[in-house]
Amino acid sequence: MWEIWICACVGLFGLIVAGFLALHVMRKNPGSPDMIHISDAVHEGAMAFLKREYAVVIIFIVCIFVVLLLGLRAEGTKFAAATAFAYLVGAGGSLLAGLFGLKISTRANTRTAEAAKSGTNEALLVAFPGGAVMGLTVVGIGLFGLSGLLLVYFGLASSLEVSLKAARVIGAISGFSMGASSVALFARVGGGIYTKAADVGADLVGKVEAGIPEDDPRNPATIADNVGDNVGDVAGMGADLYESYVGSLISGLVIAVATLSPGLKMKGAILCLLLAALGVVSSVVGISFVRGRSAQTALRNGTIGSAMIFSGAAFLCTYFWYGHLYPFIAVFSGITTGLIIGFVAEYYTTGRVVHRIAESSTTGVATNIIEGISVGMMSVVIPLIVIGVTVLISYYSAGYFGIALAGIGMLSIAGITISVDAYGPIADNAGGIAQMADLPSRVRTITDNLDAAGNTTAAIAKGFAIGSAALTALALFFAYTQTVERLSGSPLIINLMAARTMAGMVIGGMIPFIFASTTMRAVGRTAFRVVEEVRRQFREIEGLMEGRAKAEYARCVDITTKGALREMIAPGLLAVLLPLFVGAFLGPEALAGALAGSVVVGVPLAIFMANSGGAWDNAKKYIEAGNLGGKGSESHKASVVGDTVGDPFKDTAAPSMNILIKLMAVVALVFAPIILILNKWMGIVR
Amino acid sequence: MWEIWICACVGLFGLIVAGFLALHVMRKNPGSPDMIHISDAVHEGAMAFLKREYAVVIIFIVCIFVVLLLGLRAEGTKFAAATAFAYLVGAGGSLLAGLFGLKISTRANTRTAEAAKSGTNEALLVAFPGGAVMGLTVVGIGLFGLSGLLLVYFGLASSLEVSLKAARVIGAISGFSMGASSVALFARVGGGIYTKAADVGADLVGKVEAGIPEDDPRNPATIADNVGDNVGDVAGMGADLYESYVGSLISGLVIAVATLSPGLKMKGAILCLLLAALGVVSSVVGISFVRGRSAQTALRNGTIGSAMIFSGAAFLCTYFWYGHLYPFIAVFSGITTGLIIGFVAEYYTTGRVVHRIAESSTTGVATNIIEGISVGMMSVVIPLIVIGVTVLISYYSAGYFGIALAGIGMLSIAGITISVDAYGPIADNAGGIAQMADLPSRVRTITDNLDAAGNTTAAIAKGFAIGSAALTALALFFAYTQTVERLSGSPLIINLMAARTMAGMVIGGMIPFIFASTTMRAVGRTAFRVVEEVRRQFREIEGLMEGRAKAEYARCVDITTKGALREMIAPGLLAVLLPLFVGAFLGPEALAGALAGSVVVGVPLAIFMANSGGAWDNAKKYIEAGNLGGKGSESHKASVVGDTVGDPFKDTAAPSMNILIKLMAVVALVFAPIILILNKWMGIVR
Repeated sequence: MWEIWICACVGLFGLIVAGFLALHVMRKNPGSPDMIHISDAVHEGAMAFLKREYAVVIIFIVCIFVVLLLGLRAEGTKFAAATAFAYLVGAGGSLLAGLFGLKISTRANTRTAEAAKSGTNEALLVAFPGGAVMGLTVVGIGLFGLSGLLLVYFGLASSLEVSLKAARVIGAISGFSMGASSVALFARVGGGIYTKAADVGADLVGKVEAGIPEDDPRNPATIADNVGDNVGDVAGMGADLYESYVGSLISGLVIAVATLSPGLKMKGAILCLLLAALGVVSSVVGISFVRGRSAQTALRNGTIGSAMIFSGAAFLCTYFWYGHLYPFIAVFSGITTGLIIGFVAEYYTTGRVVHRIAESSTTGVATNIIEGISVGMMSVVIPLIVIGVTVLISYYSAGYFGIALAGIGMLSIAGITISVDAYGPIADNAGGIAQMADLPSRVRTITDNLDAAGNTTAAIAKGFAIGSAALTALALFFAYTQTVERLSGSPLIINLMAARTMAGMVIGGMIPFIFASTTMRAVGRTAFRVVEEVRRQFREIEGLMEGRAKAEYARCVDITTKGALREMIAPGLLAVLLPLFVGAFLGPEALAGALAGSVVVGVPLAIFMANSGGAWDNAKKYIEAGNLGGKGSESHKASVVGDTVGDPFKDTAAPSMNILIKLMAVVALVFAPIILILNKWMGIVR
Repeated sequence: MWEIWICACVGLFGLIVAGFLALHVMRKNPGSPDMIHISDAVHEGAMAFLKREYAVVIIFIVCIFVVLLLGLRAEGTKFAAATAFAYLVGAGGSLLAGLFGLKISTRANTRTAEAAKSGTNEALLVAFPGGAVMGLTVVGIGLFGLSGLLLVYFGLASSLEVSLKAARVIGAISGFSMGASSVALFARVGGGIYTKAADVGADLVGKVEAGIPEDDPRNPATIADNVGDNVGDVAGMGADLYESYVGSLISGLVIAVATLSPGLKMKGAILCLLLAALGVVSSVVGISFVRGRSAQTALRNGTIGSAMIFSGAAFLCTYFWYGHLYPFIAVFSGITTGLIIGFVAEYYTTGRVVHRIAESSTTGVATNIIEGISVGMMSVVIPLIVIGVTVLISYYSAGYFGIALAGIGMLSIAGITISVDAYGPIADNAGGIAQMADLPSRVRTITDNLDAAGNTTAAIAKGFAIGSAALTALALFFAYTQTVERLSGSPLIINLMAARTMAGMVIGGMIPFIFASTTMRAVGRTAFRVVEEVRRQFREIEGLMEGRAKAEYARCVDITTKGALREMIAPGLLAVLLPLFVGAFLGPEALAGALAGSVVVGVPLAIFMANSGGAWDNAKKYIEAGNLGGKGSESHKASVVGDTVGDPFKDTAAPSMNILIKLMAVVALVFAPIILILNKWMGIVR
């Protein structure tokens, strides 16, 4: 058990480092009163969104808490209480991480702008630590919470027989993962709708109708736009990866206890936590590498450095502590997969491919759209082959446990990948503040450079997010099947040739399309409300366009907040209720089919939409850099349309797939006992 | 056996009716020399395409023939020869049906235009019989070929023991299905690329650059455009549904012999053929209903009338001849599914939904594109639920045999659905000829009406095509698993939880994305070549724009033909080689997973792309009818872009999915013996 204590301490260590980084950021000079004022507006907007979001989330959490408490009674009151409590801790951890990360990111923006006056490295040393607060908080809370809860539960269950104890404790712990998923659903989907609705709304009236530049203080939606970057790409992304992180660890624990030989059960479970601890340490080391003149090289060094350090440490740990090398193969295949998916995303959203899309803009919008969709669809090929191969390698090296280990391996360095991702919006915001506060153009150049570096490296991080969601969903899927076996006491075979499995797969394969459709339309509807509000302000506030009066930023923030939260309830409920419904009415084979169908459809759809969006975005930037006619040309106009279509693709629909496929699997895992009872009650026997 | 004789006779009866209809059409007045001249150009263009296409197809067929002959030797030289011969007959049937259907459709166009001078009903009574030639030829050749071959093979195999005989004969017959698939691949994918490349190419230079109307004789690509309608929507669609028709029947035969109780094996197999025969008769009766003043009502009456007559006849046949009613439930669920999918397609491509897309065009192209994609994605929901439910109903009424019966039920009335589909391009072409030959506007109004009726009813037919492809692919999938069981002599369980199955699924799920991406890009590339040629002719042919000189239509036909055939080879090879590769290297579980993955991803992708495309098309037409600003307005321009994006969506990428999922399953079924030998050879044992 001492190893779990160590893991808890490492989790705490991550949190302490995050605290120091936060202090480091907060001690920096926040700049002129003007800058502070803008930053405050963004900060308040983000907090207002969080407050509303959390109010909705907490109602949701209370409902699920009650359902778990009552629904799992048949498994024993203690088990039900333990699961429900783990659920609260998992959800609470995500809420705290989001709050803390967002508080710092919305403070780091103006400080980055101020530091940019002194140079690139100085600015990087504010922006990146600002993002790293989110990164280390996520992994710190995840590891500390999970290890701590395990220690507590093992202590409470000390009276139980050894073999039973592990299964019961870890069964209850899976509630933790459900908690992470509950928050991620709202944070990622709501945040994704928020960020693009504000962005599209601000652009449509500001750039297109009024002809004022981006981030112009006269645009009433400009603060909402900057808030959106934070709630989408910092809080939403963090909650997404927290869910993956926790989900992969818990599926590892469940599968280890269920499938490994008796002597290895606990050792395998602890290995998962130790690997995560090594990952936290590697991430901290990698974070310290991020400095130097070129931001892009620094970020890349940090990421790849962490991956290499972790690989070495994981090798030593599995060989010497665990005593076998085969789990390392699975772990290593996972981390390699993450990197490959990231590099493929980079390939399809930069360079030659993007130039081809830009060239297709010269013959009009239609060819730009077709080319972008075609590129995105092609970009799914290598990632899916790699995921398929990783499933084979990790399974043949360590069974189902290997598949969980691949997920854990990929997510081990989440500490740094989240940091890189969260750094992006800080640099972006810093640029916005520089623009709004009229700082010298030299400052804006530096923040633009930082932002561009973030965009490129974020492609890799996005690959990690999707790849890890895929592996986590698969691992949770296997954890679910193991749990059904344990609960029903008989081996479960999901025969693909059974009609129920096939029907479940077809139905599960439809869900990602519903999610993509509703989230995209939600962006459109909310953006439309923003547009109307901005038009109203332009019309009714006298002197706004001349800079004599101030825009009412808070109104736009408020409208976007309400819209985003309202629009995400329907798809969210669907993702929770569908597995329950399919499981209860059609039985576990159909549910397994539905989960498999959602992954097989959801993963390529997410990769396609993310990469199409990224490629359109960069094609527009390529033309704006002066190529193929440059700004204002017909090809530029065509590329702007592509970018606008791509925005909800890459920042709303695609990331919401990550949540969807994990959430469905977690619901199946946690509610498995309830579903089995309903099956018996309705006469569906396997 | 007398029942098989009857089925062969009914097949022949269908062909005789097709012959009479062809004579009826050819006897009509072809119109003025001008009209005949234009029609001849379209006819020659279509024949030129067919000649080139068939040249490529025949090389492909010879290769597969040799592979079958040599690869299946281990199963016995006689079996190999019988399979390879069935393959030739299946492929030859499709080639003949395409040739005959296309010959008549490209003759019916000018006769329809001429008849339109006398009124709507007169024109309908030329155009629809013209399409019905294709419809009845497809089902006639399919049923006659299959029944005839069965009679011959049973005669040859008379020395074999009874139970063995059926399995061996029907195993060999599955080569017939592979033949149908080989031709369908080239006809549908090549035809799909052809039709949209010509259409987009003609529009880009003609309408956009030169500002001349559609079907203007001065546009050198206008004949290629009209040829495209025929090779895509007549020959390609016919080959697609021939493949489904034959595939569903053969999977029914294979599954009946493999899974039914000994006394029912042959009876079940014959039931499949009898149902098909009833369908042919019902279609002929339904075809006779298609007359009267409103073309749309007439077409709808014909389709629904056929479905009702068939349902009644199928009920009587299963109850009195087969002696059980349960197969009827499966058959009826299939035919209902087809109609529901069709009506859903109609809902999402007409009325309120389309008005919403049209309204979103008023805020620009980007909102139009997002709304169209969102609508298409949402339109997959009901069809997939219905397919899932049909799988359950048909399985629980008659086992795997029930799933095949659902496919057979849906395709039973293929005779009339193909007729309705093939009627569309004839009416469309008639309009083109009226325009080019400068006929009175009254004629053009009538042909436009006929065309519009065809478009609406074609939405139902498209639903049938996708739905039947899904059910056929599933039935072929089960036929494949039954074949593996028979060949390996041990029960096959495809465990979804096996790593190989999961890896296969992920890899199979990627293929539809490759197909969609490459076929769309192929359209773009070929259209670009057409544009260059048209520009060259405008530049180099003096007096072309003034109408003093004639355009070189044949050059554009030639360029499109070459482009379409070249571009389809890569995706076609992929669809054939991937199942072989996965099956040989990863074993039958992985192959089954890949097939399931391709269906689960391919079907929603096809429905999404077909309905997005249809909705964009109709939104444009709605605006062109004078709504929201009408022709020439900004919203009209936005809707034109949506339509251009939708063209390769709905007419190239979506239909090619139908082929893909069936072809992969057929390759698995026919090559199962070879794959098993390769598995043993490489040491992969189940």
